[in-house]
Amino acid sequence: MPALLLIMDGVGDRGKETPLSSAKTPYMDELAATGIGGFVRTVAGGFVPGSDTAHLSLFGYDPHKFYRGRGPFEALGAGMEMGEGDVAFRTNLCTVDESGIIVDRRAGRKDVGFEELYRAIGEMEIEDVKVKVQHTVEHRGALVMSGKGLLEKVGNTDPHETGKPIMESVPLAEGAEKTARVLNEFTKRACEILASHEVNKQRESQGLKPANAILCRGAGIYQGIIPIRERFGIRAVCIAGGALYKGAARYVGMDVLDVPGATGTAETDLTAKARAAVDAAPDYDFVFLHVKATDAFGHDGDFDGKRRMIEKVDAEIIPRVHGLFDVIVVTGDHTTAVTARRHTADPVPFLFWHRDVRRDEVTKLSEQECARGILGHIAGLDVMPMILDYLDKSTMFGE
Amino acid sequence: MPALLLIMDGVGDRGKETPLSSAKTPYMDELAATGIGGFVRTVAGGFVPGSDTAHLSLFGYDPHKFYRGRGPFEALGAGMEMGEGDVAFRTNLCTVDESGIIVDRRAGRKDVGFEELYRAIGEMEIEDVKVKVQHTVEHRGALVMSGKGLLEKVGNTDPHETGKPIMESVPLAEGAEKTARVLNEFTKRACEILASHEVNKQRESQGLKPANAILCRGAGIYQGIIPIRERFGIRAVCIAGGALYKGAARYVGMDVLDVPGATGTAETDLTAKARAAVDAAPDYDFVFLHVKATDAFGHDGDFDGKRRMIEKVDAEIIPRVHGLFDVIVVTGDHTTAVTARRHTADPVPFLFWHRDVRRDEVTKLSEQECARGILGHIAGLDVMPMILDYLDKSTMFGE
Repeated sequence: MPALLLIMDGVGDRGKETPLSSAKTPYMDELAATGIGGFVRTVAGGFVPGSDTAHLSLFGYDPHKFYRGRGPFEALGAGMEMGEGDVAFRTNLCTVDESGIIVDRRAGRKDVGFEELYRAIGEMEIEDVKVKVQHTVEHRGALVMSGKGLLEKVGNTDPHETGKPIMESVPLAEGAEKTARVLNEFTKRACEILASHEVNKQRESQGLKPANAILCRGAGIYQGIIPIRERFGIRAVCIAGGALYKGAARYVGMDVLDVPGATGTAETDLTAKARAAVDAAPDYDFVFLHVKATDAFGHDGDFDGKRRMIEKVDAEIIPRVHGLFDVIVVTGDHTTAVTARRHTADPVPFLFWHRDVRRDEVTKLSEQECARGILGHIAGLDVMPMILDYLDKSTMFGE
Repeated sequence: MPALLLIMDGVGDRGKETPLSSAKTPYMDELAATGIGGFVRTVAGGFVPGSDTAHLSLFGYDPHKFYRGRGPFEALGAGMEMGEGDVAFRTNLCTVDESGIIVDRRAGRKDVGFEELYRAIGEMEIEDVKVKVQHTVEHRGALVMSGKGLLEKVGNTDPHETGKPIMESVPLAEGAEKTARVLNEFTKRACEILASHEVNKQRESQGLKPANAILCRGAGIYQGIIPIRERFGIRAVCIAGGALYKGAARYVGMDVLDVPGATGTAETDLTAKARAAVDAAPDYDFVFLHVKATDAFGHDGDFDGKRRMIEKVDAEIIPRVHGLFDVIVVTGDHTTAVTARRHTADPVPFLFWHRDVRRDEVTKLSEQECARGILGHIAGLDVMPMILDYLDKSTMFGE
């Protein structure tokens, strides 16, 4: 039977009482009582992890080595294909005035025809580089450049504020000139396509701002990734609602399941996700199941919302998976403290279950209880080797 | 008074009850009550340690840097001499048929004349390289190449299965061509010596398979080791039965005592080893005492055998050394779980005694108790500096 890595995004918290410590979680408590606990520092002591870097770590890929910018996670999460050396960006449709000044970085957010506009830009050749965009949600999208001699070390075209023109992308390192040049040419051509597009005439007739320009940011290169199947000898699959998590999973070569109802919001269908995990179990060694809303409640400062989401995960997921996986790990990718309303560096409560683990005094996945855990503090990069060891898929160093 | 590092090989285990937790160990319990506990990850989190890499770590030598293959441990353990840049292999006498196909990788294991055959091969010059073999146990031996321009990055000649011919060694990295060439020429000459040797006529007349060929594997280079005396300023000595452990100790420059009755098996004379440690104490700063059988019982899945071996160590060694060493460390090199019957990555219970340590709640060297230890999880490489500190032999980093 495979391993299940269940990530409640941003589940750790600060304070005397926390969403985890105050949540009623009878099913996780049972796992904790027969499993072992501790904390995970997903990136490194004191580092505030991003969701992308934290997940790379948990998948066994050192983000200090393999994290080369956010773009590829967005593009892969949107289902785009990327190959070795391709560079990707996050994109926004925006509104510029007649003198080219940005008046709205999100083109009013009102999604009328956004997908059609992304399709109109579609794909183009610039020099010997293929440039392709794809719509994701609202005004957002992703851009992939495929070709030789690309480098992610280029500036954004997005100035991140209104009242300014679209920026020229500049090379930030030697060898990045071509990428900056292609991005600038793309921006010019895409803005021409957008400005004259029928959709924008309709938008203006409806009193909406035209989505007449495109902003790019978050350059990242897809490079040097040995797929998880080769690297660790496992077949791995991702069940997630949020595109970033699907993207992170694809980044390391996992399969990604499409689960209807998995939305990455508080209304996500946890039962459907649990069932998908159980259904996938026979075909995989490793199932990654991601729940996003705990993090969103943390960012909103909503203690009770976060607590209730944890209770929902407990009730809807754990009883469906317990007994059907050889290893069950329940943890988060980072702490998103409801008081701080942001990711913090506090290590994340960590629960590891296998029928043959040692025992400790931890009877609940919580900040207080895990302090008594036998695992102490482990690194994010330790998680995958530990899972492999309990799946009998580890290799020995030395003889 | 010196420090004692007592290693029970593979002593850690998995499960609710373990050999350590169920063993009656009154003498260790006394040490634990006045000492401090925790866990040691001898190699690194999640890594499954080999015995060789784990011991290097415990001796203060980072195996990621200093481990360059198994061969030298075998050769040094067999008492052979090695110098900087020498390359060593493990060897098997084997049986090949008239067309050169291996029919038995161990020449029937029946040791009639094996030592004489190794002596017959003895030593030869190939190009400007001196090649020397030595018998160890049964069909096994070690080979050392001494000369310039050698590299351990060469393939085995041992195909690790019967029904195949002896393999040509191939260079696996630039600069390894000479080593491969010498190994192939050695193999040819050694097989000629073996095939025509009188011992094999005797073996065949007794109905035994001839030991008419030799297989080499596990190339390793002896390189870059600063002896422990220079590196840490201590005189160190090893008391062990198993050749690998003597080899690991010599690898870092320890003296190795020959203790009659120390066999590396469950029948080893623990009393003799304890006495040897006590006798050596006045002449050394650091005594490494190794007990092998706990690991062997783990590999056999023999919970009770492992538990009894721990009890024997407790009764026969601890009372003899307590009070005669300034520092006593009792731990293992890795976990060899009786359920998994192999080395696992689980950290190893660790006990540190000195008259002036802090106190914790640990009253027994066991997986459960050590979870409450003040030391938490330490790295294998932390052990030697910690011992040096309590011996007042540490150096300060900074001022």
